[in-house]
Amino acid sequence: MRGYGMFSVGNPGWLDKERPACGPLDAIVRPTIIAPCTSDTHTMHGGSGPKENLILGHEAVGIINEVGPDVTRFKPGDYVVVPACTPDWLQLGIQNKISFSHDAGPFGGFKFLGQKDGVMAEYFHVNQADANLAPLPEGVSPEAALMTVDMMSTGFYGAEMAEVAYGDTVVVYGIGPVGLMAIAGAALRGAGQIIAVGTRPASIEVAKDYGANAIVSYKEGKVAEQILELTSGGPNKTIIAGGNPDTFAEAIAITREKGFIANINFFDVKDILSFPAMTWGLGMADKTIRGGFCPGGAERLNALMRVIKYRNFDAERIISHRFHGFDAMEEAFHLMDKKAPDLIKPIVYTGE
Amino acid sequence: MRGYGMFSVGNPGWLDKERPACGPLDAIVRPTIIAPCTSDTHTMHGGSGPKENLILGHEAVGIINEVGPDVTRFKPGDYVVVPACTPDWLQLGIQNKISFSHDAGPFGGFKFLGQKDGVMAEYFHVNQADANLAPLPEGVSPEAALMTVDMMSTGFYGAEMAEVAYGDTVVVYGIGPVGLMAIAGAALRGAGQIIAVGTRPASIEVAKDYGANAIVSYKEGKVAEQILELTSGGPNKTIIAGGNPDTFAEAIAITREKGFIANINFFDVKDILSFPAMTWGLGMADKTIRGGFCPGGAERLNALMRVIKYRNFDAERIISHRFHGFDAMEEAFHLMDKKAPDLIKPIVYTGE
Amino acid sequence: MRGYGMFSVGNPGWLDKERPACGPLDAIVRPTIIAPCTSDTHTMHGGSGPKENLILGHEAVGIINEVGPDVTRFKPGDYVVVPACTPDWLQLGIQNKISFSHDAGPFGGFKFLGQKDGVMAEYFHVNQADANLAPLPEGVSPEAALMTVDMMSTGFYGAEMAEVAYGDTVVVYGIGPVGLMAIAGAALRGAGQIIAVGTRPASIEVAKDYGANAIVSYKEGKVAEQILELTSGGPNKTIIAGGNPDTFAEAIAITREKGFIANINFFDVKDILSFPAMTWGLGMADKTIRGGFCPGGAERLNALMRVIKYRNFDAERIISHRFHGFDAMEEAFHLMDKKAPDLIKPIVYTGE
Amino acid sequence: MRGYGMFSVGNPGWLDKERPACGPLDAIVRPTIIAPCTSDTHTMHGGSGPKENLILGHEAVGIINEVGPDVTRFKPGDYVVVPACTPDWLQLGIQNKISFSHDAGPFGGFKFLGQKDGVMAEYFHVNQADANLAPLPEGVSPEAALMTVDMMSTGFYGAEMAEVAYGDTVVVYGIGPVGLMAIAGAALRGAGQIIAVGTRPASIEVAKDYGANAIVSYKEGKVAEQILELTSGGPNKTIIAGGNPDTFAEAIAITREKGFIANINFFDVKDILSFPAMTWGLGMADKTIRGGFCPGGAERLNALMRVIKYRNFDAERIISHRFHGFDAMEEAFHLMDKKAPDLIKPIVYTGE
Repeated sequence: MRGYGMFSVGNPGWLDKERPACGPLDAIVRPTIIAPCTSDTHTMHGGSGPKENLILGHEAVGIINEVGPDVTRFKPGDYVVVPACTPDWLQLGIQNKISFSHDAGPFGGFKFLGQKDGVMAEYFHVNQADANLAPLPEGVSPEAALMTVDMMSTGFYGAEMAEVAYGDTVVVYGIGPVGLMAIAGAALRGAGQIIAVGTRPASIEVAKDYGANAIVSYKEGKVAEQILELTSGGPNKTIIAGGNPDTFAEAIAITREKGFIANINFFDVKDILSFPAMTWGLGMADKTIRGGFCPGGAERLNALMRVIKYRNFDAERIISHRFHGFDAMEEAFHLMDKKAPDLIKPIVYTGE
Repeated sequence: MRGYGMFSVGNPGWLDKERPACGPLDAIVRPTIIAPCTSDTHTMHGGSGPKENLILGHEAVGIINEVGPDVTRFKPGDYVVVPACTPDWLQLGIQNKISFSHDAGPFGGFKFLGQKDGVMAEYFHVNQADANLAPLPEGVSPEAALMTVDMMSTGFYGAEMAEVAYGDTVVVYGIGPVGLMAIAGAALRGAGQIIAVGTRPASIEVAKDYGANAIVSYKEGKVAEQILELTSGGPNKTIIAGGNPDTFAEAIAITREKGFIANINFFDVKDILSFPAMTWGLGMADKTIRGGFCPGGAERLNALMRVIKYRNFDAERIISHRFHGFDAMEEAFHLMDKKAPDLIKPIVYTGE
Repeated sequence: MRGYGMFSVGNPGWLDKERPACGPLDAIVRPTIIAPCTSDTHTMHGGSGPKENLILGHEAVGIINEVGPDVTRFKPGDYVVVPACTPDWLQLGIQNKISFSHDAGPFGGFKFLGQKDGVMAEYFHVNQADANLAPLPEGVSPEAALMTVDMMSTGFYGAEMAEVAYGDTVVVYGIGPVGLMAIAGAALRGAGQIIAVGTRPASIEVAKDYGANAIVSYKEGKVAEQILELTSGGPNKTIIAGGNPDTFAEAIAITREKGFIANINFFDVKDILSFPAMTWGLGMADKTIRGGFCPGGAERLNALMRVIKYRNFDAERIISHRFHGFDAMEEAFHLMDKKAPDLIKPIVYTGE
Repeated sequence: MRGYGMFSVGNPGWLDKERPACGPLDAIVRPTIIAPCTSDTHTMHGGSGPKENLILGHEAVGIINEVGPDVTRFKPGDYVVVPACTPDWLQLGIQNKISFSHDAGPFGGFKFLGQKDGVMAEYFHVNQADANLAPLPEGVSPEAALMTVDMMSTGFYGAEMAEVAYGDTVVVYGIGPVGLMAIAGAALRGAGQIIAVGTRPASIEVAKDYGANAIVSYKEGKVAEQILELTSGGPNKTIIAGGNPDTFAEAIAITREKGFIANINFFDVKDILSFPAMTWGLGMADKTIRGGFCPGGAERLNALMRVIKYRNFDAERIISHRFHGFDAMEEAFHLMDKKAPDLIKPIVYTGE
């Protein structure tokens, strides 16, 4: 079968590989819509180390082609939503309730890219289908469902880690698709003032629609100063959904005592994160710093899709580009890689 | 000064009393808008035991007339929002973080009605003004602010005690003003499907505007059966904001294993709450049952008013009747007592 | 193979059944030591409805006889500790973190007795061995390990549900083996005063060793009155590990506002649980009522065995009777059923 | 009156100052036993900026000399235990439940040293006596009580911030008095293996008595490597109670995914805290980093003293030196400053 991916670091292209085999608990899925993600381009550029002959992609909805004999909830032909993170529920890490994503060691639940081929292929493999796949519910479009598998799950997790509560003042650094979802997630937890940090016009519009009350840009002056002024001294919750190590330091500095800093940004393997002890109350200001990975599994998607359905949440709002045809994956991937100015999130209809 | 209240149980009317004295940390406030509450009529009817010569009312916004010498954040003339629950922050119960409402013994923080005259008077007393009064912020109407002091604080507390999370299926029993606020509170925490139980047409409209996806009425059949069908087996969160002991038993029965039942309903002193052990998994289904009192203090109101301001939450939406003139308190009180069919929440502009 | 169990309700005895088959993820275990439990005798008497030809028993340690082809962490000959509750980790209920015990519907994780034969047999079946079995660690005796699978896991869960914190005043109703473990669990969470309610001399001694500071008996006067006096007004945490519906009502009444009532007692299918609204602050005293089931899975046992090993916790202390030989299961079972006065917990060495 | 403190940075000595005045809610206390702390010597050396004519000391028990007219729970002659952190309970920061220590801005509740003279004087001032002072309970020695006011409150807070649960593997960096209390706090929350990092022989002995299962010293090799070996890959909870920025980085590196790093160490104003993103899972390993300040208030001490009383916790065990006479404060202070090799915690009986 064909799949789009990387021959080696820095060397993307179309691969020809064997169709994956289906274990007794597993499913083989044909993608109907996929979405490339910066993690895919990041991997292609070597951001997670050397990789070869790997099909990329970890965001998809599709139709089941085959299920293993022990799968009970699904059958071929079912339309399914596939989480970016598909934990192995028999691993012991699952029994630590903090996060199912790290099923065995860090990121153990991130099978696509990390442990096997991704979803930008004619067929892809899903482990433990019963526990990981979600049926597409009535009242939710496939496109909206596709936005739950990573963007919404990760962005909303930022708001969850920050423990956003009624009336909280929240800053979100970054207005890429995940940052936008963090804004929406904060609004949907009843935040008070939400301030987004970013500059791209297309994203700013969505940020406002999703609940941002103000947008701060480095073009208008020092970001921290603008935030401190807007919030009369700093937010009590800060979500980092973009930026670099300086963003990390700034987030700690602006957040008030007893506040939360929640990171959902993938830092680089070479990054050193650092901040002055002073800005953390010399270690005693009761500021909590968290950073976590996209929660996976079927129930996560079921819950997020109920938000879409019953709260009328417009998850499709972040889709900026729609491509048609299996081969368009290539163009979408390159668009993602180049970060066109009007880009938020591209999707590709495979033609299935 | 004049105040509306009760001479004795069952005997409401206008009282003439001394203006309250102002302690060093306290404030004397002249109400500009007050809202009678069922707790006031309930108290008049003897629901909380024998009481005499008591001015009623515990929901008010107003203008400060006098502050004690140790008050630092307020001065006469300030427009303030007054929480229904004004804890004594020096009591040891404050140091148990579960709830500040019970500052010393149960409900110790509920000073109005419980320990002194209420707000339906020319002047009323607020203890520890700096910690209990909230300034009216720009962008929030006095009427919306008035809705935070009890209705919104109590209703939202229902959603908080139920730990409503993204996508949760929530049932709210009762669509009086507190139940409506519980619906809004659940929606503002990102609930999935919200089902409200009630019959009053005026309230049903607000329930839908506030986020209810379905309304269940006993007139259409057994309430529990309708809920089980709508939710395919029961909600995982249930908020009781109205009803009787049967409602309590039903709430436990319909809620799924691992769910939460949060009560914000005032039961009667004579009520016996009971439920079959079977519906609670013989004591082992991991269903949590909570019941709590309106959170008070200045920061609670500040947070809720930020929700109004930044989430565009229409807290005034529950106001069904507006009366004008100090003397109209009497009519508003009787309307509340009779529960007119189109009543949700009345307010009275005192003319101050 | 032979197994001890019930032909029908009220009709216990030795059964001859087929040896259970081993699925690809499963294990077949030969018990070396088993412990009968009141749940077993309760089931025999029909407490959980009609059952036929069922081997009883759900507390065992043993040696693996066979593993399925997909088991990776265990092999025949391994000495293993078997949780009473062995969830199916692929069920969606697992993804609700409140408790893994209810994997699909209430108590879905309780496979022994509920869904298949128990452990009082020559061989028994364990589903998903990798996720459910714990190896016996160095420094923990098999007998102590056996006490973790239900008694310690359930008793400690009582202290967890009660959120026992440093210095909390805790009452534990019932000093059977689970109540004793709740006492130990409370002490191991840093409780302050611990008061145990019970009368059996053998248990009282263990209760004191495990951390009870006072013992209250109905023989010395009204239990509630004695507790209120000892605690100057009631505990803030109460664990129910024995008793009847009156105990439930009393636990709610004595617990202070903002306190927790945690139930680990199996009530009867016919029990009605009831309490006066007054004792629950008319529904608003912020008293949390919980009731949950023995947490299962491998990591639960691993954690509890680390407590035994590193805190020098004497889990064997509750073992009051030791029987030898496979056939002694019958005598141990009858002892359990009769509740001999000096009984706490019996175990049977099978001779394996 | 006389008091020991600092004339200016680097210039300690005896000061002559006015006896503090007593406000209406306050108390004036004569210390009977005080304990110097490294925060005192640190302040003298300029660690918290320039200060002049300041009496030092923030750990004391004593006898009330005078109370304000609005104090209701205490009277002259009462023996009281004084928290190091005495929040102003009327500040709005109190209403954020994360920590009462930061009543208004970071460390607002730390009045001694920060906002007024300390306790190493003939008389000292306590704000809001009813909410901040704890009576010395029967069954607790004054010396043990003295150990609760900062050492035990701070050390145990480390275990609380780390959310130590049954069976957790815990590393504690630092075995000064606070680190020792963190070890005890972890043991009293039911930790599994506890590993302490330190070298001082006197402290090592106490560490073992308090529950440490292993001691790691840099003298035996790289600390991180030793820990990784002892724990088969790292602890899931790490408490930093001593060390420098390298300790902070190491703590993050060794702690497993989903673990907690809790800091109770005072870093220097010039310190930069930094760690490689890799060791934090590139920002996504769900490792929580917290750092907080000694919880204060009366109820904190009441709870800790109940632990001493009912768990037989030997809080005096960390006292290594006992001085007698008011003037001995000077010697004790200098001992603290020099950190004699056999020093853990000195106390001074004032002769009152």
